[in-house]
Amino acid sequence: MAEHYLSGERVHQCWDNSLSPLLTIDPGDTVVLETRDASNGHLTPYSTLSDYQNRPTGKGHPLTGPIAIRGAEPGDTLVVEILELKHKGWGWTGFRPGFGLLADEFPESYFTIWRLERDMGSFRPDIRLPLAPFCGVMGVAPHEPGTFPTIAPAAHGGNMDIRHLTQGSTLFLPVFVPGALFSVGDGHAAQGDGEVCGTGIEAPLVVTLRFHLRPQEHLPEPQFFTPTLLSPRAQAQGFYVTTGYHSDLMECTRKAIRYMIEHLVRHHNLSREEAYILCSTAVDLKISEVVDAPHWIVSAYLPQSIFV
Amino acid sequence: MAEHYLSGERVHQCWDNSLSPLLTIDPGDTVVLETRDASNGHLTPYSTLSDYQNRPTGKGHPLTGPIAIRGAEPGDTLVVEILELKHKGWGWTGFRPGFGLLADEFPESYFTIWRLERDMGSFRPDIRLPLAPFCGVMGVAPHEPGTFPTIAPAAHGGNMDIRHLTQGSTLFLPVFVPGALFSVGDGHAAQGDGEVCGTGIEAPLVVTLRFHLRPQEHLPEPQFFTPTLLSPRAQAQGFYVTTGYHSDLMECTRKAIRYMIEHLVRHHNLSREEAYILCSTAVDLKISEVVDAPHWIVSAYLPQSIFV
Repeated sequence: MAEHYLSGERVHQCWDNSLSPLLTIDPGDTVVLETRDASNGHLTPYSTLSDYQNRPTGKGHPLTGPIAIRGAEPGDTLVVEILELKHKGWGWTGFRPGFGLLADEFPESYFTIWRLERDMGSFRPDIRLPLAPFCGVMGVAPHEPGTFPTIAPAAHGGNMDIRHLTQGSTLFLPVFVPGALFSVGDGHAAQGDGEVCGTGIEAPLVVTLRFHLRPQEHLPEPQFFTPTLLSPRAQAQGFYVTTGYHSDLMECTRKAIRYMIEHLVRHHNLSREEAYILCSTAVDLKISEVVDAPHWIVSAYLPQSIFV
Repeated sequence: MAEHYLSGERVHQCWDNSLSPLLTIDPGDTVVLETRDASNGHLTPYSTLSDYQNRPTGKGHPLTGPIAIRGAEPGDTLVVEILELKHKGWGWTGFRPGFGLLADEFPESYFTIWRLERDMGSFRPDIRLPLAPFCGVMGVAPHEPGTFPTIAPAAHGGNMDIRHLTQGSTLFLPVFVPGALFSVGDGHAAQGDGEVCGTGIEAPLVVTLRFHLRPQEHLPEPQFFTPTLLSPRAQAQGFYVTTGYHSDLMECTRKAIRYMIEHLVRHHNLSREEAYILCSTAVDLKISEVVDAPHWIVSAYLPQSIFV
């Protein structure tokens, strides 16, 4: 049961099952590792909108790994215990043209820096968000040979952006190649279910993971266990909720977020851009019903406790 | 600030803004009312699958109302405080051919009775579900003249099936006709976000509501405040989560629920039909991300605390 360390000095920016592992471990071993932020270190706590607009793009998320787990074989399940996630005191959120749920309605780039204290984050003095760090990307090498972008998640995991993969959670991933070849990155200090503007609180993290195998236990796609959904503090003042009905779930989602942005602008004195950022980092999307044909409902939940 | 009582003896089974109110109240008044279950009283705690299959169908939800609120005008917001919801010790869940998220995979009808204690429900001795009663249907008369089925929700509210409209919540509805003409029904003792098999724990309820007006405050669609999403008991043992990725959110949803049914059958000794019922009454659908093109992720959350 060794403990290993893997720095963020070497990263890979695509999925490719022919990549050589940086580290090979035994089942039961723990790895403490560093993940770069999604900008690959280009942005800092002092960055501006101009820095955000001028950063290099086009390459994928910088991922720490691959880590090979001895004995892992296709058809096994890789068990990843998420033991600890630590931020480094800052993060950023931004959106850019052509990306995000409401790309057509936000044609200009926007960018903000978050100051992160121990377990709270802020980008305006009147907003304090409870932090719940997780890695947006966790995955194993895909089954198919070749080079794949990191942006879209798939059966091997990858850029899942599931906000409840927090400390204390356990992720189950199907194994497709010998050794599994696990990689991780895209740390978020907080994010709402949906990540609607395309980014959470993007942050470099220090991550502690422990790995196990479940031989010959096949999963079709990633599954996980999470111990808690909401802290008592996050629930403390209830939730304001907007709803959107439509015959298409994506359109339901757009309506619910549009109404939430209007609500935040009107009642909480935010700009439309700040409201969109807050929807992406703090508002949770739930599918309220998918059976009352022809109209489904998606609802957007805003925790009232974030307003100081 | 009068308190009124409205029995469930007279109901209406469609939306129609020409219906005469059964009760006219002032803003600030409270109404205690009875709602019939979705079968319109055809089913009882002793009903069988055969009774379920042979019940009359084709008519809409039986709704208690309309209630006119004096002074309500188009363009106002009707505020509905949900003060109390009480079940009557029993409920039912069922699905039938052609209806529900996985209609093609469940071609036969299925039906079960729930025994409801104070705040817990059970349809098998090894499952105890925390109850969180709410009304599946709450709405005002629609803007358009004519007769409309109750099944699909719309801007006037209606069959929203939003599980967090529980005791202590406040619903905000746009008013379309003078008096608003509020109606309510389709009580559920519990339901998961999604209501995937098409029914929750369908139950007759006693409901206490208080009404207010916000003049000339227009909402495009219903919005609400809810004080709590999950009780400490519901969170107590964490959540097992399945995920589904796809380029279509509905297909994401189907995959996540299919995987959850497989999980429940394999690890909790349920039949596929019982698992589908449990997904509809206890499992919550969240949109994890809608931005990592071309693959979105919907996740299905199972509270582990329901297993005795």
